Amino acid sequence: MSANRPLKVALFGSGRIGQVHARNIAEHPDLELAWIADPFIEGARTLAAGTGAVAVESAEDVFANADLDAVIIGSPTSTHVDLISLAMEHGVAALCEKPIDLDIDRALACRDAIKGNKTPLMLGFNRRFDPNFAAIQLRVAAGEIGRLEQLTIISRDPAPAPAAYIQSSGGIFRDQSIHDLDMARFFVPDIIEVFAAGSNVFCDYIEEAGDFDSVVITLKGRNGELVTITNSRHSAYGYDQRLEAFGSEGMLNASNVSPTTVRKYGAKGTEESDAYLPFFLERYAEAYRNELDSFAKAIRSGTACSPGFDDGLQALLLANAAEESARSGRIVKIGQG
Amino acid sequence: MSANRPLKVALFGSGRIGQVHARNIAEHPDLELAWIADPFIEGARTLAAGTGAVAVESAEDVFANADLDAVIIGSPTSTHVDLISLAMEHGVAALCEKPIDLDIDRALACRDAIKGNKTPLMLGFNRRFDPNFAAIQLRVAAGEIGRLEQLTIISRDPAPAPAAYIQSSGGIFRDQSIHDLDMARFFVPDIIEVFAAGSNVFCDYIEEAGDFDSVVITLKGRNGELVTITNSRHSAYGYDQRLEAFGSEGMLNASNVSPTTVRKYGAKGTEESDAYLPFFLERYAEAYRNELDSFAKAIRSGTACSPGFDDGLQALLLANAAEESARSGRIVKIGQG
Amino acid sequence: MSANRPLKVALFGSGRIGQVHARNIAEHPDLELAWIADPFIEGARTLAAGTGAVAVESAEDVFANADLDAVIIGSPTSTHVDLISLAMEHGVAALCEKPIDLDIDRALACRDAIKGNKTPLMLGFNRRFDPNFAAIQLRVAAGEIGRLEQLTIISRDPAPAPAAYIQSSGGIFRDQSIHDLDMARFFVPDIIEVFAAGSNVFCDYIEEAGDFDSVVITLKGRNGELVTITNSRHSAYGYDQRLEAFGSEGMLNASNVSPTTVRKYGAKGTEESDAYLPFFLERYAEAYRNELDSFAKAIRSGTACSPGFDDGLQALLLANAAEESARSGRIVKIGQG
Amino acid sequence: MSANRPLKVALFGSGRIGQVHARNIAEHPDLELAWIADPFIEGARTLAAGTGAVAVESAEDVFANADLDAVIIGSPTSTHVDLISLAMEHGVAALCEKPIDLDIDRALACRDAIKGNKTPLMLGFNRRFDPNFAAIQLRVAAGEIGRLEQLTIISRDPAPAPAAYIQSSGGIFRDQSIHDLDMARFFVPDIIEVFAAGSNVFCDYIEEAGDFDSVVITLKGRNGELVTITNSRHSAYGYDQRLEAFGSEGMLNASNVSPTTVRKYGAKGTEESDAYLPFFLERYAEAYRNELDSFAKAIRSGTACSPGFDDGLQALLLANAAEESARSGRIVKIGQG
Repeated sequence: MSANRPLKVALFGSGRIGQVHARNIAEHPDLELAWIADPFIEGARTLAAGTGAVAVESAEDVFANADLDAVIIGSPTSTHVDLISLAMEHGVAALCEKPIDLDIDRALACRDAIKGNKTPLMLGFNRRFDPNFAAIQLRVAAGEIGRLEQLTIISRDPAPAPAAYIQSSGGIFRDQSIHDLDMARFFVPDIIEVFAAGSNVFCDYIEEAGDFDSVVITLKGRNGELVTITNSRHSAYGYDQRLEAFGSEGMLNASNVSPTTVRKYGAKGTEESDAYLPFFLERYAEAYRNELDSFAKAIRSGTACSPGFDDGLQALLLANAAEESARSGRIVKIGQG
Repeated sequence: MSANRPLKVALFGSGRIGQVHARNIAEHPDLELAWIADPFIEGARTLAAGTGAVAVESAEDVFANADLDAVIIGSPTSTHVDLISLAMEHGVAALCEKPIDLDIDRALACRDAIKGNKTPLMLGFNRRFDPNFAAIQLRVAAGEIGRLEQLTIISRDPAPAPAAYIQSSGGIFRDQSIHDLDMARFFVPDIIEVFAAGSNVFCDYIEEAGDFDSVVITLKGRNGELVTITNSRHSAYGYDQRLEAFGSEGMLNASNVSPTTVRKYGAKGTEESDAYLPFFLERYAEAYRNELDSFAKAIRSGTACSPGFDDGLQALLLANAAEESARSGRIVKIGQG
Repeated sequence: MSANRPLKVALFGSGRIGQVHARNIAEHPDLELAWIADPFIEGARTLAAGTGAVAVESAEDVFANADLDAVIIGSPTSTHVDLISLAMEHGVAALCEKPIDLDIDRALACRDAIKGNKTPLMLGFNRRFDPNFAAIQLRVAAGEIGRLEQLTIISRDPAPAPAAYIQSSGGIFRDQSIHDLDMARFFVPDIIEVFAAGSNVFCDYIEEAGDFDSVVITLKGRNGELVTITNSRHSAYGYDQRLEAFGSEGMLNASNVSPTTVRKYGAKGTEESDAYLPFFLERYAEAYRNELDSFAKAIRSGTACSPGFDDGLQALLLANAAEESARSGRIVKIGQG
Repeated sequence: MSANRPLKVALFGSGRIGQVHARNIAEHPDLELAWIADPFIEGARTLAAGTGAVAVESAEDVFANADLDAVIIGSPTSTHVDLISLAMEHGVAALCEKPIDLDIDRALACRDAIKGNKTPLMLGFNRRFDPNFAAIQLRVAAGEIGRLEQLTIISRDPAPAPAAYIQSSGGIFRDQSIHDLDMARFFVPDIIEVFAAGSNVFCDYIEEAGDFDSVVITLKGRNGELVTITNSRHSAYGYDQRLEAFGSEGMLNASNVSPTTVRKYGAKGTEESDAYLPFFLERYAEAYRNELDSFAKAIRSGTACSPGFDDGLQALLLANAAEESARSGRIVKIGQG
């Protein structure tokens, strides 16, 4: 790592999320997109075109470079554990998309394997960097609403992913709710109990996959905080991402984001807002940039990345507990993680 | 006037506004609706039915009653001056709908005729009693936004009155804007300059009547306050009644009133509110009740009615000045009223 | 019951809620407040003063009157079952405040005792008559948001009742949540599963009473609907009463109610609204009036009262199930109602 | 101009607005910041550092470069006319900040001098590119609210510029209102009448400079449209930039912009929003980027720049007319532009 030039970054994955990271790396003054790796080499080449980055096929091609400073792991979930391990072995900073793995045992094994390794490692819970949620977290932490007592998270996707995706998604808790479970931990890090209920109310192929299309999760924190998470795989009015923190001295909430402040008043309705930003690429565009910037700064300053590997692990454990609860009808207690 | 029984009230006029007053008098614990007067005696009888009130035809029938305590004048504008004069002569408290008269000379003659008379006399500028506008006026008067510098009033009717009404209305300034001119004086009592611009943009029969369907008025107060009034005779989204007071230390505004707090979120729009309350009967229902209560209390306590006759006169003078300005293209200066 | 005169009503209880009913009965054109019964006869006398009502001490004094048409039961919870039974025996219509009883066995016995009795009997779940919530329920029932999938209810009192009240309240589920459980049933009548979690986060004397100060309840409806209820016994920003209905084609929600539409913009914050209406007497003033009117109309028309006795029973069963779930950490299944 | 490389741009002025343009040019994929010109060469050097741009002192140094494609004129107002003329002479595209000049005669002479010149020339009325106002303009133009009838513009700076700036500003109409006059023309291009009123209500040194600190302007369009502009040189709650377009079939408005959607609910106020974005650099950051992009695209496509030189001229004529009206108390008619 050189203090005199931008950090050289390799990006794994040239899909939707890889494209977001590629653009953000290109725009970041302290990062240089040097390699894009994808076994589907055409994807890597297309994305690399005009950026100066070199398209490569394999992880070996990436880690062979002595001047590699950092990797962004945006490849399929099944590759995460291996790439994290490789990065840590090579002492290369890594930012890995969630989840660590759908299999908690692989995630735990990875944890054991990298124990003690001080190389910067960040988990891509991008919503922590959303300006709205981040502002609330800061204000709560600063005591603006006293002691936090209740947290309400509503998170609905605009429409369900295709059947093929659903089947390999790990289920709604590990695929969708995991973001909200991490958000819950952003405010209430120490969760001791999980309860969840799931329903199938609108999507046949989700039901056929043995998954739920709608869930509600209740969490209890060590200090008695009560958290509710409401998820749906669809939303007629677009991506619904809201949060409300209730404390002993007040409440802070964040509503959905519209592209403009324009409102319409007509014979059929008044004060009508724009459609919300359609999905995560738009809604969390700034969050992805802030996340990357935080990663770059952590590398430069040598401070710990946050959220880190353990946050990824805890979110996964909560997702698994939610699944277990929804299947058993019982509270699941969380150990002294 | 007896302290042991409710005040005996006679109502002039059994039309739309008379019906509002009749209901409010009936519900007021300190008022008794004793007579309803209308030359169209069937209207008076219908309204009186079941109220205990006696339907009469003429003012003589009303003022002949020794136990009459107060009159509410909701009859046509052309009768206002005579009824005010009669009430004052008989020492009977009066609440008269705006305007005093369309003819400023008749209004001035009435002023001279009743000069020195201490009988309670109130002008029906009901909007001063709207909870929203009244709250702002109180908070401004209490200094919450420092010194008042600018006032923005937007006031649009849902749809123009019929051609016949327009022709005898006295014109938009004396008929519609007069409410807003009084509202301006509620905040800035001492107006020194008036400018107005009028347009015909949507209604042929208003143009044929030599009247405007859309106007903008600028007022300057003695302390440099700038007031804008925007009026239209129609509004596709319903009755539009808003006010914004800007001061050296902040701003207070009141938006339109919806029947509920419900909002709709759908594929075609988000955060959509209910249609606004349709017109003045609904929008100012509470204002009419508060106005009547203020009138009753002023009678009982012997304090001056507000707004009073002079407020009616000043609003009329401003309306005339606005008309003159719109016709001449020049500022009209207001004398030391 | 006479068609020619208002219905003669007796009111049980002269406390806070009795006073609300007394005023509303007095203002209702088809109801006459004839008797006010309270063993604390001074309370009854004070409330009766100036209304024309007769203050009496006992239920016998009330039911002895042959011209009695209806009773409003606003006396302590422990008296509800007996007064309902007496009213039904005498064929006198009754509107009873919630809950029927804190003891489900007494409530069930009452149900058995009055089985088959066709006398109008209404349960005082006033919130069903709140214009905001009622509008949403109507619009959902009309299909405006498609099929209902998720319902989010947030309901927080401004401050906890005193310790003495808490001790005899029956606990937060039967005392506070019961309103929200009925609201859930207003939208999702057929609940099949209940889960609840409770916490003690701010109030020592509630904890000492073995009660929770904060709870979250999850309900599942027969068609997979998921309902969350979030309750707290306090709220720094006042009475918090919100509801959000999410359906396959959109969402409808109702926010809190402010006394005016005024907003403040200053150096320390922008778009600041008034404090919310402080507590249920103000927030639900219109709901109480609408409820009474619905009761009067049901008596006159001979149609069934809604909500009725069974609604009171079901809400109590759900409250008990919630308590059981919060104590056991397990879902409680609800029988076939 | 080469199709194979970004356009080579020279920036005049290294002050506040120059810095905005420098950053935006640097981030634009089709623009290359090649020269920064400022007689205060240190400013140019500081801004050029690390950008690859060459700092130069004079216009000659800029226009001597054969590969120059475009200039951005962000230098003092007095230099605008000369730099526009030079650019047009050299056939170099120019984007010039408003106003063209404070002296209408110089502006008119410039117009005559460049008549017939087809080189792209854009005026920097950045607010036309604000996403909120641009969205309204598009929707109005698409007929969403029918025929435009009234336009309400409220525009208040957070605090007055220093006395020295005020003295050479050309006065509030040419310095501040000119943006709003152009915004009026964005919606109503053909203005036929101007009326203005000015006041001095809070700032002594503005009054001493013979200028107003608060003004209201009324415009009439050829089709009877009525426009009001309300300006103040200060605002306790921050930069206040709002617009409301009222048409025959509805209304569209844009409110102020907060950094987040977060709202605070506490004992002292509810629904409190963040402070607004403080001033034009933040509020119109996106507008500046969009403006630059529009300029680049116009150059590449050979289409006319909008807003163009004539828009700058018309806004200046309206500002002069407003000044004249405020001094004379009369409407000023605008010629057939």
